[in-house]
Amino acid sequence: MKSFLNNFINRRNIHLDYASTTPVAPEVVRAMQPYLTERFYNPSSSYMDAQKVKKEIRIHRVEIARMFQSKESEVIFTQGGTESNNLAILGLARHAVEHFGFKPHMMFSEIEHPAVSECIPVLKKMGIDIDIIRVNEKGVLDTQDLEKKLTERTILISVIMVSNEIGAIQPIHKVSSLIKRYKNKLQRPFTQYPFIHTDASQAILTEDVGMSKLGVDMISVDGSKIYAPKMTGLLIRKQYVPLEPLVYGGGQEFGLRSGTENAAGIVGLSAALSLVRTFKEKDRKRFEKLRSTFLDELSKTGITYELNGNDNAHVPHIINICIPRLNSDFAVIQLDELGVNCSAMTACASAKGMPKSQVLEAIGKPECAASSLRFSFGRTTTVSDVRKGVRVLAKVVTKQLGNV
Amino acid sequence: MKSFLNNFINRRNIHLDYASTTPVAPEVVRAMQPYLTERFYNPSSSYMDAQKVKKEIRIHRVEIARMFQSKESEVIFTQGGTESNNLAILGLARHAVEHFGFKPHMMFSEIEHPAVSECIPVLKKMGIDIDIIRVNEKGVLDTQDLEKKLTERTILISVIMVSNEIGAIQPIHKVSSLIKRYKNKLQRPFTQYPFIHTDASQAILTEDVGMSKLGVDMISVDGSKIYAPKMTGLLIRKQYVPLEPLVYGGGQEFGLRSGTENAAGIVGLSAALSLVRTFKEKDRKRFEKLRSTFLDELSKTGITYELNGNDNAHVPHIINICIPRLNSDFAVIQLDELGVNCSAMTACASAKGMPKSQVLEAIGKPECAASSLRFSFGRTTTVSDVRKGVRVLAKVVTKQLGNV
Repeated sequence: MKSFLNNFINRRNIHLDYASTTPVAPEVVRAMQPYLTERFYNPSSSYMDAQKVKKEIRIHRVEIARMFQSKESEVIFTQGGTESNNLAILGLARHAVEHFGFKPHMMFSEIEHPAVSECIPVLKKMGIDIDIIRVNEKGVLDTQDLEKKLTERTILISVIMVSNEIGAIQPIHKVSSLIKRYKNKLQRPFTQYPFIHTDASQAILTEDVGMSKLGVDMISVDGSKIYAPKMTGLLIRKQYVPLEPLVYGGGQEFGLRSGTENAAGIVGLSAALSLVRTFKEKDRKRFEKLRSTFLDELSKTGITYELNGNDNAHVPHIINICIPRLNSDFAVIQLDELGVNCSAMTACASAKGMPKSQVLEAIGKPECAASSLRFSFGRTTTVSDVRKGVRVLAKVVTKQLGNV
Repeated sequence: MKSFLNNFINRRNIHLDYASTTPVAPEVVRAMQPYLTERFYNPSSSYMDAQKVKKEIRIHRVEIARMFQSKESEVIFTQGGTESNNLAILGLARHAVEHFGFKPHMMFSEIEHPAVSECIPVLKKMGIDIDIIRVNEKGVLDTQDLEKKLTERTILISVIMVSNEIGAIQPIHKVSSLIKRYKNKLQRPFTQYPFIHTDASQAILTEDVGMSKLGVDMISVDGSKIYAPKMTGLLIRKQYVPLEPLVYGGGQEFGLRSGTENAAGIVGLSAALSLVRTFKEKDRKRFEKLRSTFLDELSKTGITYELNGNDNAHVPHIINICIPRLNSDFAVIQLDELGVNCSAMTACASAKGMPKSQVLEAIGKPECAASSLRFSFGRTTTVSDVRKGVRVLAKVVTKQLGNV
């Protein structure tokens, strides 16, 4: 018991769960600091001290807009990725129900994060028709299924850019090309529905997120996955997409998110995005090295496993494996005790008390839904961390399933 | 021009606008720091490192509950006071429209902050009947008017605890006694509507905010007014008050506010509340001294002015004065140039582009609506700051109106 308590107080595990959330980067902490203390003013006040803060927020907004091939007025600072997703989806839905004059239809992939999928019951209550787009066994969106389900009343298609659970990259560009052709066929201007929204929270560290390149109308980003503070986030939204706010008040963020601006958070998020720009290529290469080390070492152990996801289009920092007959919930606890953090289900799904992975059920691997583990890497993860992770995993598998 | 630019870059004004927002206290910054960096884990993850963060959040929740004479499960961490107010009001409204089976009725004072009053058009669109409760010439709620407008369909009465613009303390306890009697008369249990909500953001620094003492069902608090980070806040809500969330997802905060918990923000808010507990009496006395200094010095200048608000029940850190014929917008700029920050309208009202003070119009002083200034004190404001503030004010009044 004593050693357990000691353990509870002092130890520091090897962390292989950066996809659940990242620490705030030291550069980001430094950038935020002055806005907590001396530059604390309310940007809506009219004296110069406050107007300076307002101007600085604007500079960051312009810089972020550039990164997303977007305009200043299209960058909305939100309180987290969950809020960004809700604002995109519920915000459009509330506008549509009031103004569009027909029963709207929305589509979602079957591997959305709860921040998206939990909006669906709310949409249904609002009288919106919903279709779920299938994914194949690699966890990749079935665009034919999308095309089949598309209707003239479809106002939104929301597809996660990279699955937070398995890491498969989704064919967002294919979706947007398809929708572009569809709009052309109907002779609808591109500024009209259906709009495309993507949650890029797990993508942005390694993938290109330019709005024009992707061809989407809205992008969500969560600060807590990219070394910015928690409850910071972005919704980039083309100006022609009509949204109702979720939160009303002082009218900040172009009326779309009221509340005294969190300048510290905004500056922090901006600094984190600037690190993303600087390190994207480097990070990707490093993650790829860590990934191949992990898989090589794993193969050497002789453990029977299957890689969940799409090896052809996969982010390198998320590995999700199915080990047949493993009790993954218990494995996470065993790995923890042996000094390694990883996850069986995503933290958000587990917060909802979901019994097993909906995503793995969706990709047609029900036998894997309770036998899969996710390992994910961060900027400070080393090759030796990964080796230790695999060694501990092998121990745990042996404990549970006998000699492999 | 050069001196103007220099000024722009280097100067530091005497700040007499702490009611618009406060800096983060050094103790709060220190408390937050570890949760940004080493204790960054997602509290929904199941390994110990993350569970420790979860447990720490819980400890803070329990402590905060005690401060509000409330229960752990009644403390909801929100992203700012605006969100708290919206969650209380829109959250209840959405539940009521779906479940109550009658046309609900809500009442608001006519001096609410935009975070409350801007919900009203949304409520109307939802089909909710609204009544506005009058205030008297001192800015104090007319409880007789409330009683007159109360109906059996009234589900919510929302009254700001202290006017953010003029500082008048509202008779919340009188409201709750009245509603208690009303429920008794109707033989409705206290757990049923009408519920009482109060925005305590400007009150908590100096006033008692115990739920039982006030007799309210919901209290909003904004971190950015009490030396905690911006976009942190609380909604304390009795468990019998049914709310729909504004944001859906992982189901954090008892399902009422999804998104990975901002442990740093929560710990910071908790530290700020702990400072409030420790310094409430001291702060009040210091603010009272500053207030009397301000008013004494102002009288000495010979300026003709009128105090807006209720001298019998007023928070000591907010002074709002009407100086007949003064152009207050211009005065704020002139005061700024001479080294003093204050406000003509609240920052939130000015963010909305409101042309003049709705609150001063409400209290029946339309001639003061564009001729009033608010000076508000913070924990570091000194007597000499206040003296200088009044000296500069006298100069500005002379410039605008000639010798006084």
